[in-house]
Amino acid sequence: MPQTDSQPYDFDTATAVRRGEGDDVYLADLDPTWQVGGGILNGGYLLSVAAQAAVQGSHHPHPVAVSASYLRTTAADTVSLRVTPGAGGRTLAHSLVTLSDATGRPSLTVQATTATLTDEAPEYADAPMPVMPPPEECVDMAARLNPDPSKRPGLSRHVDSRLDPATAGWTVGEPSDEPVLRAWIRFVDGRPADPLALLTFADVLPPLGFVIGHRGWAPTVQLQVLVRGLPAPGWVLAETRARQIAGGWLDEDCTIWDSTGRLVAEGRQLARMSRAAG
Amino acid sequence: MPQTDSQPYDFDTATAVRRGEGDDVYLADLDPTWQVGGGILNGGYLLSVAAQAAVQGSHHPHPVAVSASYLRTTAADTVSLRVTPGAGGRTLAHSLVTLSDATGRPSLTVQATTATLTDEAPEYADAPMPVMPPPEECVDMAARLNPDPSKRPGLSRHVDSRLDPATAGWTVGEPSDEPVLRAWIRFVDGRPADPLALLTFADVLPPLGFVIGHRGWAPTVQLQVLVRGLPAPGWVLAETRARQIAGGWLDEDCTIWDSTGRLVAEGRQLARMSRAAG
Repeated sequence: MPQTDSQPYDFDTATAVRRGEGDDVYLADLDPTWQVGGGILNGGYLLSVAAQAAVQGSHHPHPVAVSASYLRTTAADTVSLRVTPGAGGRTLAHSLVTLSDATGRPSLTVQATTATLTDEAPEYADAPMPVMPPPEECVDMAARLNPDPSKRPGLSRHVDSRLDPATAGWTVGEPSDEPVLRAWIRFVDGRPADPLALLTFADVLPPLGFVIGHRGWAPTVQLQVLVRGLPAPGWVLAETRARQIAGGWLDEDCTIWDSTGRLVAEGRQLARMSRAAG
Repeated sequence: MPQTDSQPYDFDTATAVRRGEGDDVYLADLDPTWQVGGGILNGGYLLSVAAQAAVQGSHHPHPVAVSASYLRTTAADTVSLRVTPGAGGRTLAHSLVTLSDATGRPSLTVQATTATLTDEAPEYADAPMPVMPPPEECVDMAARLNPDPSKRPGLSRHVDSRLDPATAGWTVGEPSDEPVLRAWIRFVDGRPADPLALLTFADVLPPLGFVIGHRGWAPTVQLQVLVRGLPAPGWVLAETRARQIAGGWLDEDCTIWDSTGRLVAEGRQLARMSRAAG
């Protein structure tokens, strides 16, 4: 997908896969800049790469349901993606994708269902988009970190997130009692959102622990994302919400609407949470 | 788990696994009575059998996150369950379970994370149990089908579900505009709920299409269930809800609380829905 200046979009380059040795094996050069800090690659980015391999190995263009187990951290290296086809037909196809490092050690397994989504109007819809201020009145965390987009750290170089001020108190040392985040999201370079991008967007907001004043990272254990429609052009709105934190486990529900207010993705993850409060 | 009369509970017999040939292979005799109609085994029941195998192959006793892809219908036969261990440690362990029929054809793949849950109070909780009438004031569908428990069809012989009258209009030909179901659930024979049982309970209520007047079945494509705590004794309350029906796809969110009002399980599935309205 070339831009007007014929440069490919960041996301397409970073998620590209090519055929490896043997049937159903793909290779990808993971991009170290899609990290969340400390060199740890974003879980949503890894999910998009795995789904890219699943789509390449399928007759259907869109990931509609993906479930990932995060076994270990994945180094930003050349990785292999083995796609094991499951049952498939005219409507949908299943596969299992195993992402392994150069030594063959798996770090991510993904069950993927592919199909062909359309933009037809839903027969039933009851998930109204939350009301929040427009992007220009929201908190641009990346701009705070560095006014120069090319010098921003990690993910924020690629993904433009504007936090609803009502959920951004923690960014100025005023944590909330409620682990909820809302943000407008788009790619910095103007790449349109599509089902593959929604997988990254479903895991791109800061950890909900931060919102309530925890300092530790909350590594994803398992994440499912359902893609429910083709997003219209423009910003998407993502909301993440935890319902229970107990015994060191945290759930994180992510809902994404497109610019027309249509629900386009739903994700739910289980994460481990450090018990040490900030 | 013997009852007072030393008979094992139905659910334990129906989900038992034994070692098969080779490491990490288990066998199970699927019980044909755990069906939803037409001989189709309940998806939650199959999930519990797969999780039973994952637990047997793990150092941890409880499934805390399971994601299943339903590749094809599974016949009520002797099946094999291959458990492929992933990374594991003191806190949790990952594995992939593949359920295959006697010819070796896989019909269900499950990514399972096992750990050790406790009943300690949540640090944060914001998922209040819905208010609904007590079980004796709810709609006992099974009793309507047949007053004699031993003559009831399929699942209803094993699982006692009492529908909130507010969500049961469809059972008397008065469908709702809103695809929501609520019910008290317990095992007929008094077996206590536990994490393994919650996996079945997360997929045990009637399809949400029925609630809004669709007649067709809605086969599950992919289902994730997170188990968030050890349920207290007594009934659990389950609520299922669809947020969007579009292009023949339906989501179904299931939340389960125990008798103390604690959130103990959260499931989300993507299902295919017949376009033919009833």
